[in-house]
Amino acid sequence: MKPFERLREMLIQNNGKAVIIPHADEWQNEYLPQFKERLSFATDFTGSAGCAVISQDKAALFTDGRYTLQAKSQLDTSFFDVVHSGTISIVDWIEKNLQGEGSVFIDPKCHSVKESENLSKLDLKFQEKNWVDLIWENRPRYNQEPAFDMDERYLDHSFEDKKNLILKSMNADVLILSSPESICWLLNKRGRDIKHTPVFLSFAILESNGSFEVFSNVFGKPLEDFEKYLRLIENKKVSIDPARCSMWVEDLLKKQSNTVLRIQDPCLILKACKTPSELNGMRHAHKLDAIAMIEFLAFLENSNQNITEIEACDILKSYREKEKTFLSLSFSTISGADANGAIIHYKPDRNNCGLITHDSIYLLDSGAQYRSGTTDITRTMAFHDNISMNIKNAYTAVLKGVIHLSCAKFPKGTTGHRLDTLARYHLWQQGLDYDHGTGHGVGCVLSVHEGPHGISSHPGNTTPLMPGMVVSIEPGYYKPGEFGIRIENLAIVVESSQFENYLEFETLTLVPINERLINFELLDNNERKWLENYNSEILEELQDSLSPQGKAFLKIIR
Amino acid sequence: MKPFERLREMLIQNNGKAVIIPHADEWQNEYLPQFKERLSFATDFTGSAGCAVISQDKAALFTDGRYTLQAKSQLDTSFFDVVHSGTISIVDWIEKNLQGEGSVFIDPKCHSVKESENLSKLDLKFQEKNWVDLIWENRPRYNQEPAFDMDERYLDHSFEDKKNLILKSMNADVLILSSPESICWLLNKRGRDIKHTPVFLSFAILESNGSFEVFSNVFGKPLEDFEKYLRLIENKKVSIDPARCSMWVEDLLKKQSNTVLRIQDPCLILKACKTPSELNGMRHAHKLDAIAMIEFLAFLENSNQNITEIEACDILKSYREKEKTFLSLSFSTISGADANGAIIHYKPDRNNCGLITHDSIYLLDSGAQYRSGTTDITRTMAFHDNISMNIKNAYTAVLKGVIHLSCAKFPKGTTGHRLDTLARYHLWQQGLDYDHGTGHGVGCVLSVHEGPHGISSHPGNTTPLMPGMVVSIEPGYYKPGEFGIRIENLAIVVESSQFENYLEFETLTLVPINERLINFELLDNNERKWLENYNSEILEELQDSLSPQGKAFLKIIR
Repeated sequence: MKPFERLREMLIQNNGKAVIIPHADEWQNEYLPQFKERLSFATDFTGSAGCAVISQDKAALFTDGRYTLQAKSQLDTSFFDVVHSGTISIVDWIEKNLQGEGSVFIDPKCHSVKESENLSKLDLKFQEKNWVDLIWENRPRYNQEPAFDMDERYLDHSFEDKKNLILKSMNADVLILSSPESICWLLNKRGRDIKHTPVFLSFAILESNGSFEVFSNVFGKPLEDFEKYLRLIENKKVSIDPARCSMWVEDLLKKQSNTVLRIQDPCLILKACKTPSELNGMRHAHKLDAIAMIEFLAFLENSNQNITEIEACDILKSYREKEKTFLSLSFSTISGADANGAIIHYKPDRNNCGLITHDSIYLLDSGAQYRSGTTDITRTMAFHDNISMNIKNAYTAVLKGVIHLSCAKFPKGTTGHRLDTLARYHLWQQGLDYDHGTGHGVGCVLSVHEGPHGISSHPGNTTPLMPGMVVSIEPGYYKPGEFGIRIENLAIVVESSQFENYLEFETLTLVPINERLINFELLDNNERKWLENYNSEILEELQDSLSPQGKAFLKIIR
Repeated sequence: MKPFERLREMLIQNNGKAVIIPHADEWQNEYLPQFKERLSFATDFTGSAGCAVISQDKAALFTDGRYTLQAKSQLDTSFFDVVHSGTISIVDWIEKNLQGEGSVFIDPKCHSVKESENLSKLDLKFQEKNWVDLIWENRPRYNQEPAFDMDERYLDHSFEDKKNLILKSMNADVLILSSPESICWLLNKRGRDIKHTPVFLSFAILESNGSFEVFSNVFGKPLEDFEKYLRLIENKKVSIDPARCSMWVEDLLKKQSNTVLRIQDPCLILKACKTPSELNGMRHAHKLDAIAMIEFLAFLENSNQNITEIEACDILKSYREKEKTFLSLSFSTISGADANGAIIHYKPDRNNCGLITHDSIYLLDSGAQYRSGTTDITRTMAFHDNISMNIKNAYTAVLKGVIHLSCAKFPKGTTGHRLDTLARYHLWQQGLDYDHGTGHGVGCVLSVHEGPHGISSHPGNTTPLMPGMVVSIEPGYYKPGEFGIRIENLAIVVESSQFENYLEFETLTLVPINERLINFELLDNNERKWLENYNSEILEELQDSLSPQGKAFLKIIR
């Protein structure tokens, strides 16, 4: 019996209406340690965002536009419907599709307080122990590796400095930190609990008198002591971040007569606005990463035989691993040739993946964690000059979007949402668009997806872009069944060098744009100049660090 | 004693904390009949958006960026502070600035239900009779003029058609209409109760059985019968629009055991999405208006003597009045030379206004109501070729914003907010911006400001742009004390001729762009082509209708 069938059986035994299996773990992590990949175990869907609902006679997996195609190919679609999470909420879906009485079973540790605002419309029942854990045989172990200190060269503030900054604006007796990224940032430490995010799983409790306890298996008090310490907090004013703190924690705090204040984790903005030394680290990491990427692309250019998408991932990784400060990839490499490139967050299957041929349009989205910083880059490649005009036109519209946004100057206070259309405008002029955000925040030796800012079509994010923030700029175009195009650079938000109270972008990424895919007739003079500067600055910056093959490649593709 | 001093005296007599005097009347109209201009009577501020708060020892006038300069020049600033309404809400201002006990006195008929959501945080007391009315001696009379029918040529739907459309989606027993624009649209009638908006003051009650009563002094039941009919509604499900329905109406309905549903006035979207015949009417009105504008601009160009800003208004109006279907202006003409042009909604004072000289930068924002449609146009003019480069650069950036937005194609479902940045981008690139929206909806022989759509930097408006909507496109730049620049065209949102599910703009306005103010080096080829097409299409469209002087003018300014 498949896991999802066993879950349905448990639901029937418990006389429930539905059971919800979110992707999230107890930390609302986006990238999970293997032993927390419950959704993947239960459904076979491996995307980094999703949630399954299983009722006695229906089942659905909710995920966003990046993953709907992938979900359809990974799931048993005789059991699960795939639902685009933008079209209907889980609660509305349940109310619309599931008749009759009965409770909806959830694990309160795996849902944030924020989610509970919606979920509470349902007749909820808490799973005493996580149902997936109950049936998960041969579950991967929690492999604890030691924590390590951040490189002093890329730090400006000590733990004490940062703690004092947070205490200064603290408006409660106790602050609960539920985000391992925030805690690791605060401590200037990193870990290896999660495959692509160099953090250790942890909670922390900061009191207004300055006392600070971390709970993890590699630093501070043991992780399992968190509950014990939580139970000591009574009759206090306690701040939590509803986006990361679990329903279970808030529930416990309220039962102990605490006043719970829902605030944004105060580390978020401080962490997002990187200091000069952190930005130097990010610049250094991008230089290291560009060398690996260019050497790999040169290899690909010169390779006489077709390689598979997964071989490409392995070879690219081997180039990155040559750098001694390499820690890990920053996410699973998306390596998609032709039709696979149209699957927005495609992850090639080792046993069944596509071939990159001389005629392929090849989309490669990858990144790495170095001791100095985090990278994330997408390039779309062609290997000869005879590319069809419809592909060139789409590629050029995507590139124009990158340039349009990269060159923007904008007043302080502007949100990423207000800039989103700049990346889409030239695609729209061709009747094209993409069903994903334009940019996400990026951490420094932390998660490759970092809030609270972002650049997207959704008006909900009201955090303005601020100096020191790092964002991706990554418009795309995907023709299902044929090809996918995406160009992604990372950029730092910096003060405008020309205008007071204006901001602009400093591009971090140093990998050239493939000119084979460009219809130059669609570029205006400014765009041509931008491209020429960009590609030639890379040559200047990196030529002494590249192999002859790498250096030659920089000249071939332009 | 000044009116605002008398209001303070009444407040002290009533032992109150503050009295609020909004610009709005009982219909939450933007443009008011003279006898409803209470804010202007009480404070001397004549802007179309604002609200005064008078306490026992402080007073403030809240208004938006269009009017802050104007407010400072019109108000007794020893009595009133001028507060930019974007920086603090009235409720927050009261809580922050006014200590001590006491009630805040309001007229519940002059505040919408929506406002009451915020105001209800205060200790409110209802004025039994409007306090301004109590002290208003020599108040203008309510001059009733007869209603008239819309021209059949510019109509596609009868009153019955429209009523049935609304009944179809009606989800309540009773619908209260509080917007004269909605009621006039529904009836295919217009009136002359408000100076610039051809409506009659009215309320209406629609029942789900199809019964429909209008209350006004020119059509249907007498206006004062509205209250009597309202008092007959008991134990019903009643829909109101919280944006236009007053607190007083909702209060009454609730006291009579009705269930009040807060919805968007169903006429709004139907009225905003104009029908083919209405759009033909709008096109026709723009042609009539362009002839008047061009003849006026030609006169100005050829005039050998300086004229005042107000003389310009009068002369322009006389050109418009030559057209027999002219009804009225659609708003008070904004006619500002040089520094006055920097006052965003400047209205020249007949007794003390500026001179338009040969060296002026002259901003003219005006519009008219014709039997066929409504217009609104802004042009910024110069009268010789020797314009300084900083003015030319700013003008060119504004023009590039107009072109950038006018040329946009965008997917259905896109809000105006998502397009706003396109109009600002080129200004931002020069470190410039403007503190007003980019575009507003425009009615058809109705209010020149029409919801529910709009193009602005505020993310609150979630109404997508839809085919048949008319919007203004009007970026600007204002250098206080020196000059103001704005270029405003109206455009229809139409289905894209090229791409399915895409929309684009069809420009309605037919008045040429002054090329004297352009730095052509900043225009790219596409922008030059747009400009050339625009100005030459106007010549082609209008040359047979213009005087020799008007025709010659079209050739001079390019």
